[in-house]
Amino acid sequence: MQRTEIATMGEFGLIKHLTKDMKPLQPSTKKAVGDDCAVMDFNQIKNEKLKIKNASDVRVLMTTDMLLEGIHFNLEYVPLKHLGYKAAVVNFSDIYAMNGTPTQITVSLGISKRFSVEDIEALYSGIRLACERYNVDIVGGDTCASMTGLTISITCLGVASAKEIVYRNGAKLNDLICVSGNLGTAYMGLQLLERERLANAEQPDFAGKEYLLERQLKPEARRDILEALRKAGVQPTAMMDVSDGLSSELLHICSQSGVGCCVYEDKLPIDYEAAALAEEMNLNIVTCALNGGEDYELLFTCSLDDYEKLIPVDDLYIIGHITKPEYGCNLIGRNGEELPLKAQGWNAFEETHA
Amino acid sequence: MQRTEIATMGEFGLIKHLTKDMKPLQPSTKKAVGDDCAVMDFNQIKNEKLKIKNASDVRVLMTTDMLLEGIHFNLEYVPLKHLGYKAAVVNFSDIYAMNGTPTQITVSLGISKRFSVEDIEALYSGIRLACERYNVDIVGGDTCASMTGLTISITCLGVASAKEIVYRNGAKLNDLICVSGNLGTAYMGLQLLERERLANAEQPDFAGKEYLLERQLKPEARRDILEALRKAGVQPTAMMDVSDGLSSELLHICSQSGVGCCVYEDKLPIDYEAAALAEEMNLNIVTCALNGGEDYELLFTCSLDDYEKLIPVDDLYIIGHITKPEYGCNLIGRNGEELPLKAQGWNAFEETHA
Repeated sequence: MQRTEIATMGEFGLIKHLTKDMKPLQPSTKKAVGDDCAVMDFNQIKNEKLKIKNASDVRVLMTTDMLLEGIHFNLEYVPLKHLGYKAAVVNFSDIYAMNGTPTQITVSLGISKRFSVEDIEALYSGIRLACERYNVDIVGGDTCASMTGLTISITCLGVASAKEIVYRNGAKLNDLICVSGNLGTAYMGLQLLERERLANAEQPDFAGKEYLLERQLKPEARRDILEALRKAGVQPTAMMDVSDGLSSELLHICSQSGVGCCVYEDKLPIDYEAAALAEEMNLNIVTCALNGGEDYELLFTCSLDDYEKLIPVDDLYIIGHITKPEYGCNLIGRNGEELPLKAQGWNAFEETHA
Repeated sequence: MQRTEIATMGEFGLIKHLTKDMKPLQPSTKKAVGDDCAVMDFNQIKNEKLKIKNASDVRVLMTTDMLLEGIHFNLEYVPLKHLGYKAAVVNFSDIYAMNGTPTQITVSLGISKRFSVEDIEALYSGIRLACERYNVDIVGGDTCASMTGLTISITCLGVASAKEIVYRNGAKLNDLICVSGNLGTAYMGLQLLERERLANAEQPDFAGKEYLLERQLKPEARRDILEALRKAGVQPTAMMDVSDGLSSELLHICSQSGVGCCVYEDKLPIDYEAAALAEEMNLNIVTCALNGGEDYELLFTCSLDDYEKLIPVDDLYIIGHITKPEYGCNLIGRNGEELPLKAQGWNAFEETHA
């Protein structure tokens, strides 16, 4: 494979090369890469579906995520194109988690000499693919040399209707707790990749487990769930995306809303392949589902009155309900036992593993 | 000095600790740290001074900068508080360079184990000080462990009036070329710091050179110049901030505007202390002024008709004028010789120095 040193292009040349042929997908993007700033006009947005009737309904959302080599990803088994895709999608997921629509991102890269122009092209092609699929413009960024490894910092803007925005603090007593997709699957994908890496086999054995890998390497943001909820006429009262694990996210919603919660072990949506691998690897799949993280599913609460409306929504599961704060946050086990939820979410500052 | 390990707090604890007591300074900030996204309402901005009469005049600006240890800063001589201040201000400078006003930032940090809670407090106190001085809110970010060194990625939003926004591509034939402050001073500050570091003296000798250090370690963004221009009734035709060096920036403006330029060596604003140190260190101060970078002064063009209006503006220098494109971009030396401007701007990918 060809290897072009980044030094032969310089920073401006590389940016020009990576961003050529980009055409704005969002009408709000007035000026993308090429000046001191990107320029957006969020006044022109009129969107019946998003309940934005005029400019005063528009709210601008902003979120950011940093990915560091050796902490968040291991290039031994993560292809650069997938990494780019995921780095963009995790930001989109945060915008959807407010009931918004992502519109623009900036991409900053710190790149060590180990990487060639072709490597960065692969990474960028993943970012661009995600942007095309989710209708988002790359409007700027920063590209610089790094002493060690690869650093990716993406910041995402989005829009939402003031009437539709969903915070973490709106959960009310007796609200239903819902989650999309399934939980713990991305974590099991990571376990699988780590196992095969340590086994050091010439040909890693992923047969029948492709879905687990996809969930870890190329997650999607659940735009479809928001569309289905809108169609069903359901407005969530509180919402988050599941990035650090269900337990950790539920505790955030409950503490910010001043409520307690009760979720049922037998209601947690668990993928069959993930459960089979957990069994094989002697892991407790419920623990993985509660604390695994990186699922990027949507977790939300909504009024008990919406129960009927939720039934036709595909790939959505009611896992519990909101209680009074004094009840705390509990998991009801298969035998009826109550276990307090704990934020065992991964603390990267405690244990640095790749 | 006390040293608290970051692991004892965890990511959420650290963020809470760093962002406590923050009150929004901007009316557009509706929700800062604490949810999946920050939320802004840019419709309420009515600002006579900025010529924003109603929501449809508002444009949202976005810029981002990444700073990596060992590439952009050396902690042997850069205090963390200054580093934080500078990391924020360089972003504000990009917003001002569009004739906008910075309003919100997100701050992402990658932090290795070498750093304590107290270190990050110092860094953050610099960021917060800059934000207070420039009236900007910290609305989000990401804080994570890194394998090596410190990474700072800041993204800044700002607002501008559609009528006032200034791009790089608006320079017209015969326009005046103006620059604020002085050039090459930040670069000489860096040379001084490097010299004293290499000399390895117990007490570095900075006497009489404090201004050079300040320009390198704690630059300011030229909000005052924009205010003065507004007051004088001057609307720039093209503008940039000088971050990579005057030559490089002039070439950007000229190529994007499809014009040439002519600047005069004897008009370049040069600080006396910087010139004296250059002499002492056998450096050509004009080369430093053209290619030094990191001055964060404003470089702009404006109509020749505005000449009289520019005279009362403090700390502003007319250094040349815009020509036909076929003339190219040239410096006229003290003896009348023409030298083509070159973008010798620093290419970090070529030579990695700390």
